Amino acid sequence: MTEELSAKLEKLAELQKKLYAFRYATSSIYLDGATVAPKDTEEGRGEALGILTEYMYDLSTKAETIEFLEYLKAHSDELTPHQAREVELLLRDNEFMKTIPAEEYIGYQKVLSKADYVWHKAKAENDYESFKPYLKEIFDYNIRFAKYYKPDEEAYNTQLNMYERGLTMEKCDKFFATLREHIVPLIKKIMATGKNETLPVRKGFSIEKQKEFTKYLMDFMSIDPNHCVCGETEHPFTLEFTKDDVRITTHYYEDNFESSMYSVVHEGGHALYELGGADEHKYTVVAGGVSMGIHESQSRFFENLIGRSEAFITAILPKVKELFPEQYGDIDARTAYEMINRAEPSLIRIEADELTYCLHVMVRYEVEKKMFAGELTVDEIPAEWNRLYKEYLGVDVPDDAHGCLQDSHWSGGNVGYFPSYALGSAYGAQMLAKMREDVDVEAAIASGSLKPIADWLGEKIHQHASMYDPEELFEMVCGAPFDPTYYVEYLENKFSNIYGV
Amino acid sequence: MTEELSAKLEKLAELQKKLYAFRYATSSIYLDGATVAPKDTEEGRGEALGILTEYMYDLSTKAETIEFLEYLKAHSDELTPHQAREVELLLRDNEFMKTIPAEEYIGYQKVLSKADYVWHKAKAENDYESFKPYLKEIFDYNIRFAKYYKPDEEAYNTQLNMYERGLTMEKCDKFFATLREHIVPLIKKIMATGKNETLPVRKGFSIEKQKEFTKYLMDFMSIDPNHCVCGETEHPFTLEFTKDDVRITTHYYEDNFESSMYSVVHEGGHALYELGGADEHKYTVVAGGVSMGIHESQSRFFENLIGRSEAFITAILPKVKELFPEQYGDIDARTAYEMINRAEPSLIRIEADELTYCLHVMVRYEVEKKMFAGELTVDEIPAEWNRLYKEYLGVDVPDDAHGCLQDSHWSGGNVGYFPSYALGSAYGAQMLAKMREDVDVEAAIASGSLKPIADWLGEKIHQHASMYDPEELFEMVCGAPFDPTYYVEYLENKFSNIYGV
Repeated sequence: MTEELSAKLEKLAELQKKLYAFRYATSSIYLDGATVAPKDTEEGRGEALGILTEYMYDLSTKAETIEFLEYLKAHSDELTPHQAREVELLLRDNEFMKTIPAEEYIGYQKVLSKADYVWHKAKAENDYESFKPYLKEIFDYNIRFAKYYKPDEEAYNTQLNMYERGLTMEKCDKFFATLREHIVPLIKKIMATGKNETLPVRKGFSIEKQKEFTKYLMDFMSIDPNHCVCGETEHPFTLEFTKDDVRITTHYYEDNFESSMYSVVHEGGHALYELGGADEHKYTVVAGGVSMGIHESQSRFFENLIGRSEAFITAILPKVKELFPEQYGDIDARTAYEMINRAEPSLIRIEADELTYCLHVMVRYEVEKKMFAGELTVDEIPAEWNRLYKEYLGVDVPDDAHGCLQDSHWSGGNVGYFPSYALGSAYGAQMLAKMREDVDVEAAIASGSLKPIADWLGEKIHQHASMYDPEELFEMVCGAPFDPTYYVEYLENKFSNIYGV
Repeated sequence: MTEELSAKLEKLAELQKKLYAFRYATSSIYLDGATVAPKDTEEGRGEALGILTEYMYDLSTKAETIEFLEYLKAHSDELTPHQAREVELLLRDNEFMKTIPAEEYIGYQKVLSKADYVWHKAKAENDYESFKPYLKEIFDYNIRFAKYYKPDEEAYNTQLNMYERGLTMEKCDKFFATLREHIVPLIKKIMATGKNETLPVRKGFSIEKQKEFTKYLMDFMSIDPNHCVCGETEHPFTLEFTKDDVRITTHYYEDNFESSMYSVVHEGGHALYELGGADEHKYTVVAGGVSMGIHESQSRFFENLIGRSEAFITAILPKVKELFPEQYGDIDARTAYEMINRAEPSLIRIEADELTYCLHVMVRYEVEKKMFAGELTVDEIPAEWNRLYKEYLGVDVPDDAHGCLQDSHWSGGNVGYFPSYALGSAYGAQMLAKMREDVDVEAAIASGSLKPIADWLGEKIHQHASMYDPEELFEMVCGAPFDPTYYVEYLENKFSNIYGV
């Protein structure tokens, strides 16, 4: 290795460590803001985040950085595959960043640092008007950024690619059409059975007991409490500092213990992905999950394919009965399975059952697509949202708090993220089919620990972090390209069985 | 104003904003580490903190910074008093920083980032040996730094000055001798009365109720919950992000509700100081309390002079009875006052009563003084610690967890800090005498809100943040130099009255 190459490789490692430190800092500030910070403190947080983000932007885009990255790219045959991937990801990031004027990037970060607070307040007070100017800015910035980045591409395609490389509106439209075609008639049949009215509904779950249940679930999932803890936030999320330090959050409602339970299992799935990265990725840009679609494939895998399976509900029922004897003492496993999988059109995405969930995602996809195409304005979002809920789910949205203000994504700048939830669910179904070749899934669940399942995913997916692009990784795992049929068949089988239709 | 001056002033503001952002980030990471982070996560935190600290060091010490600070100093007559103070504080900081080799400073930060974790573990496991190498490094670094900074000065004098400008061993020795001379015989007389054995002892305070009591106390102190919240840590502390965002922590013990109560009132006093800064100091180095002595004068003012007064205990007793009817239902105000002020030699500083507290501080002062003089090694600390406890307090230390491992200060690098606790207590007594000229203190307490007291301190002290050095500020407040007689007389009067001696 030449001295020059070795010097540039040192710079490569140094750059990534610095980026790591700034990511760590901004994550810590974000976590604090979302969990324990006093209410009226967003100004100081925004100032600090603005400055730290400016440093990150500067580090990633300055001429000196590009110079040595380009040098290393030209010498890729002398690099390890890991180093080559680091250079590739950094340059890819840079391709995007360098098209955005610094002041716009910083301006956008400032909007975001306030938007989260404003959204929380707007949701609590059902006041879309107060959030609207922020939402407009966020969409405007994202549309502008997409156009700066790829002037000749349709902006929403560019945007989808940021969360799931390779995804396009064409693919989404097709995928969603397939789903709609199968799910909408199935839901109609289910509603016609009247079975939902016969399912027991239980309320009044002690928050303290729910917290105990959170610990039980994390243990069941084989999440190491020395490396991952659970906090409380309005909207649950997962945040990784390193592969050794991952945080998840949930929310507790007295009248809905499944809400917290499935938040924990969902975020726990994200956490396992992050905790499972190989040590070699530490402090590099290869650390962390590769895409939102793959990430959601892990979280929704645990939430639904495992967590809402008859085997899992049977396995945890004794603990549920122990913690909530009043609510679940008289419920048998099959009834619990049916109660928890009660499928019906509803208003809130994160509370939706597995079957109708994708329809909620489609509403957001359609709204985003139209916003990016200039066919919709922020003034029109509530009406369009409500119209689509009526069309896809047949429900009337009573107010914006239960409508377009329900999700935290847009206020966090995550525009174009939603389709990855549906995609992730469908990825997961195909992964499960593959996993069954190696693992007796039901036996693992019945044994009281999901470790064999987490280990399989760890070996096939988690350890690789961001080494491979999502399409490549998916084919490595499943030995075939993505095929939504697995998911549609899985849903049809499961819910036909439950509802006898 | 010349264009050059105006450009340098812009740099001055920019530098301070950047320093603010890094301080914010490191505070956030520290808070997370001390409160909610999973156990085995110190490595990633240490890496991030190391890099961020390096940035701060570089910002403060690089030639470009010194150049414009020196320029501004030379033009001080054209600056506002605030700008002049900013330059003074930054240069003062720099005087120190520039004498320390960068790699030593960074090395020290790395030791600190691990030491806190190691200390927690060592304390929990009563394992001084595991903490010893860290403690050695921390003392060594501090002694070396003090010598780099002022080669001709005695190192411990330099160290004391870092927490309380103007303080010397000579002053401490005299101050502590006065205290010892009065307190030691008084304690002997108190112990001879046998009264302590007649005072009721109550246990089994529900943690949930104690948390409710924390909120009550913060409200009583007029602390705005939108700008200050209380978390839980092993060792309570106060942390300020900005004057609008201050955090305090406490710990809860079922058998000792006073421990949490007085932690909240103590940290609440620190918090009021930080919350009371004028807006003009925001994002500058003038923000925040000026010294540890003044800071402790505020925290110990609320904790003792107010919080352990008969008026305060009488005022809060109805709430105490409401929350803890089993423990306090049958206790009258005078008895509660005497129970809470029970004075007797003990092992743990932060649980010590007001009278014996200073003796605990003196032990630490003597140990630090000897370490800095090279008269003691880390191997000898436990024995020397135990010897001094026997000499000053007459108690036998059973193990290091209840001895030299009890405090978090050294593991946090706060060597030379302890004397400021005693000094702060004594400052407070003199401030209270002055306050009585303007405020009917007992009437304010009886009215159910400490706001008139906090307002007086706010006007005289808090609003000024770090505009004035501690000695200058003290004389502005009290109209006279510091005189320990106020404190000694206050203690003698209070405890003679309680114990009838």
